Amino acid sequence: MATAGKVIKCKAAVAWEADSPLVIEEIEVAPPQKNEIRLKVIAASICLSDVYHMYKGKPKDGFPVVMGHEGAGIVESVGPGVTEFKPGDKVIPLYLSQCRDCKFCKNPKTNMCEKDCESLMTSGRSGNQMFKQSPSEIRFTCRSKPLLQFMRTGIFSEYTIKNKIALVKVHDDAQLDRVFLFGCGVSTGYGAAINNAKVEPGSVCAVFGLGAVGLSAVMGCKHAGASRIIAVDINEERFEKAKILGATDFVNPKLHQKPISEVLIEMTNGGVDYSVECVGQVDVMRSALESCIKGWGVSVIAGWTDLYDFSARPIQLIAGRTWKGTSFGGFKGKDDVPKLVLDHMAGRINLDVFVTHNMNLDQINEAIKMMMAGAQTKSVYTVYIYIPNT
Amino acid sequence: MATAGKVIKCKAAVAWEADSPLVIEEIEVAPPQKNEIRLKVIAASICLSDVYHMYKGKPKDGFPVVMGHEGAGIVESVGPGVTEFKPGDKVIPLYLSQCRDCKFCKNPKTNMCEKDCESLMTSGRSGNQMFKQSPSEIRFTCRSKPLLQFMRTGIFSEYTIKNKIALVKVHDDAQLDRVFLFGCGVSTGYGAAINNAKVEPGSVCAVFGLGAVGLSAVMGCKHAGASRIIAVDINEERFEKAKILGATDFVNPKLHQKPISEVLIEMTNGGVDYSVECVGQVDVMRSALESCIKGWGVSVIAGWTDLYDFSARPIQLIAGRTWKGTSFGGFKGKDDVPKLVLDHMAGRINLDVFVTHNMNLDQINEAIKMMMAGAQTKSVYTVYIYIPNT
Ligand SMILES: NC(=O)c1ccc[n+]([C@@H]2O[C@H](COP(=O)([O-])OP(=O)(O)OC[C@H]3O[C@@H](n4cnc5c(N)ncnc54)[C@H](O)[C@@H]3O)[C@@H](O)[C@H]2O)c1
Ligand SMILES: NC(=O)c1ccc[n+]([C@@H]2O[C@H](COP(=O)([O-])OP(=O)(O)OC[C@H]3O[C@@H](n4cnc5c(N)ncnc54)[C@H](O)[C@@H]3O)[C@@H](O)[C@H]2O)c1
Ligand SMILES: [Zn+2]
Ligand SMILES: [Zn+2]
Ligand SMILES: [Zn+2]
Ligand SMILES: [Zn+2]
Repeated sequence: MATAGKVIKCKAAVAWEADSPLVIEEIEVAPPQKNEIRLKVIAASICLSDVYHMYKGKPKDGFPVVMGHEGAGIVESVGPGVTEFKPGDKVIPLYLSQCRDCKFCKNPKTNMCEKDCESLMTSGRSGNQMFKQSPSEIRFTCRSKPLLQFMRTGIFSEYTIKNKIALVKVHDDAQLDRVFLFGCGVSTGYGAAINNAKVEPGSVCAVFGLGAVGLSAVMGCKHAGASRIIAVDINEERFEKAKILGATDFVNPKLHQKPISEVLIEMTNGGVDYSVECVGQVDVMRSALESCIKGWGVSVIAGWTDLYDFSARPIQLIAGRTWKGTSFGGFKGKDDVPKLVLDHMAGRINLDVFVTHNMNLDQINEAIKMMMAGAQTKSVYTVYIYIPNT
Repeated sequence: MATAGKVIKCKAAVAWEADSPLVIEEIEVAPPQKNEIRLKVIAASICLSDVYHMYKGKPKDGFPVVMGHEGAGIVESVGPGVTEFKPGDKVIPLYLSQCRDCKFCKNPKTNMCEKDCESLMTSGRSGNQMFKQSPSEIRFTCRSKPLLQFMRTGIFSEYTIKNKIALVKVHDDAQLDRVFLFGCGVSTGYGAAINNAKVEPGSVCAVFGLGAVGLSAVMGCKHAGASRIIAVDINEERFEKAKILGATDFVNPKLHQKPISEVLIEMTNGGVDYSVECVGQVDVMRSALESCIKGWGVSVIAGWTDLYDFSARPIQLIAGRTWKGTSFGGFKGKDDVPKLVLDHMAGRINLDVFVTHNMNLDQINEAIKMMMAGAQTKSVYTVYIYIPNT
């Protein structure tokens, strides 16, 4: 393309600092360097993790930053050493790399990759240091200031840059304004059920929180053959879509005096076989564990917070429950996302149900506001899509 | 036997109240009722769970009680409805029942049994209500006062009573003064490694705490083919036996400034594949989790406390670790204990290493004192055995 090798000036949504709205700026996107790909972004959406970064986590060294990590695009140009991608390819950025070379990538049990962070080699007690860009990785500037790419992605920009180990080519006929959802939320929830919980046919499941992640978890439980799927949310508006995706029972914790785990234990004569937490609150994580049946119940944490510890009594594990977590649904991005796209193309995965609004980049603050109000207001759902204005 | 059908008067160690030494009393043991077996106790030992009940947990309704739950004996007489046992059979009491009839017993994933407690049907948030005897289950009296049997066993007595679903017959040639260890500690640690952690050949393991439970966990890791077993204890005296049972590395947390998880992560280039907590302290539980490698590390809680919550950051599970617990090593008592006994008879399980002192019932307080001092003093090891004085 005419732009290859040149700096591209384009629009992007910049978070200059924590706790403030994004600013649509003209930024400069450098040409892709060795092993890098520059892509034109076609579709994206907001994940609660974006909102978390801006208004809750607020890491000191996390700003200024171009937000967004869930999206899809088309390759504009490639840097030296890139043979797997060519201009025009349809691609989905991955926030978890797959270098295929490290001991994590080589182990079928995980989708972690050593290339994502030194901190894979630490206990993680001091929070998440993954996805932090080093100064040499900066490719965006605005008014001469370097800008970070959120989760090494920064998708709320007309163009962005990804390393070849963190980008995946999908089918030429993929519908980018749908499959962008595999960039985070839908993969996460769907995989939490099928890869992490490993839901078995005939089992009883509960999903806490029915945003994009939770709805996908419902879908995953259904595809895995669950006989009963209890959808739990404080916003009853969410029940409708959960039902479309396979939920059989609906519980609003606000309507119950007693702990929600006791409600579920009674409903199921002892507890659910699998639960997935898709809210990001430590008390809900505990409820999700406590809702599991003793002996074999498995609870998976998909929701995100690094501000608080989760906790429980030892007996709750000693009595046979298992506590796990999920990152990107346990999918190895390069191996699995193309298959998910094929599943969508074959009609096996319903993505239409997730897309409730079409907006453009200029409306990003409005979209975030709607997203944040999701749990409170009636009419708003969670996932938005925009096509940039170029 | 001449005693069949009659009340037996015999010696037992009674905890009249919390925080005080046991008192050797003459108690009355009722004849076995429907589905019950009365047995003559031949060998027993003290488990940290006994000490915990007396000096830490101290449940209001847990006294007066005949302590002890790890032991072995010979059937003295049987009540109506018992066909599986006859006088003279060698038996091991189980603190987890196996009724073979409930949905837990029928599920190969667990060794829980619904008959043990109503509270299997609760979240367990309010602590462990398992093993609580109802008034109709009282069989011991002393000075006209009813006495509980600790963990429905009360093995520190010359005779005790068990329901047929919580007693298992073992091989006629079993060496009772060794296989009594399968009544709790050794089964728990061994099974924690092979059944709960499911240690794989070639893997790297860590065991925190090297009492009877921890040493057995070391043995379990070894039998499962671990290539490296890191034994962690603040009492270095414990390392010798751990080495005999297969430990390859030895770490004393007291000799390190930094968190023990960081020490282990450095030693193993990222963390261990499996860890087992055999101490019963929530901070050690957290260390054991944090010592696991991201991606696939599995940590199993074997240690017991119901006074505190364990906790960690969500990322520590989200990054791919799994947190589990064990009760009796995941063994179904009736099915598996006889096999463990055969393994001992065939020389595949070393029990001699666990038995460090021979004492009798009259010395029980001395034994408990030595047990409690275990972590502080040099010369004392953990497991004691006594043959009652009849
Ligand atoms: N682990 C991962 O890889 C990964 C990936 C993507 C997102 N996440 C996290 O997943 C979580 C969900 O993301 P999302 O985009 O679906 O969010 P969302 O805001 O769209 O959905 C959250 C839902 O939880 C509901 N909720 C709030 N409090 C509740 C409670 N007490 N009980 C039950 N439901 C309650 C809300 O009403 C809402 O419907 C977030 O924490 C996000 O950061 C994690
Ligand atoms: N889950 C079950 O089914 C089950 C069954 C039996 C026992 N238990 C529990 O297992 C635990 C161990 O029992 P045991 O009889 O082997 O006890 P023990 O006292 O013989 O052994 C505990 C060991 O932990 C060591 N220790 C103390 N603090 C430590 C620390 N900070 N780091 C490393 N090591 C430390 C001590 O030095 C000691 O060697 C107890 O909590 C007991 O109640 C559980
Ligand atoms: Zn996300
Ligand atoms: Zn890798
Ligand atoms: Zn015990
Ligand atoms: Zn049962």
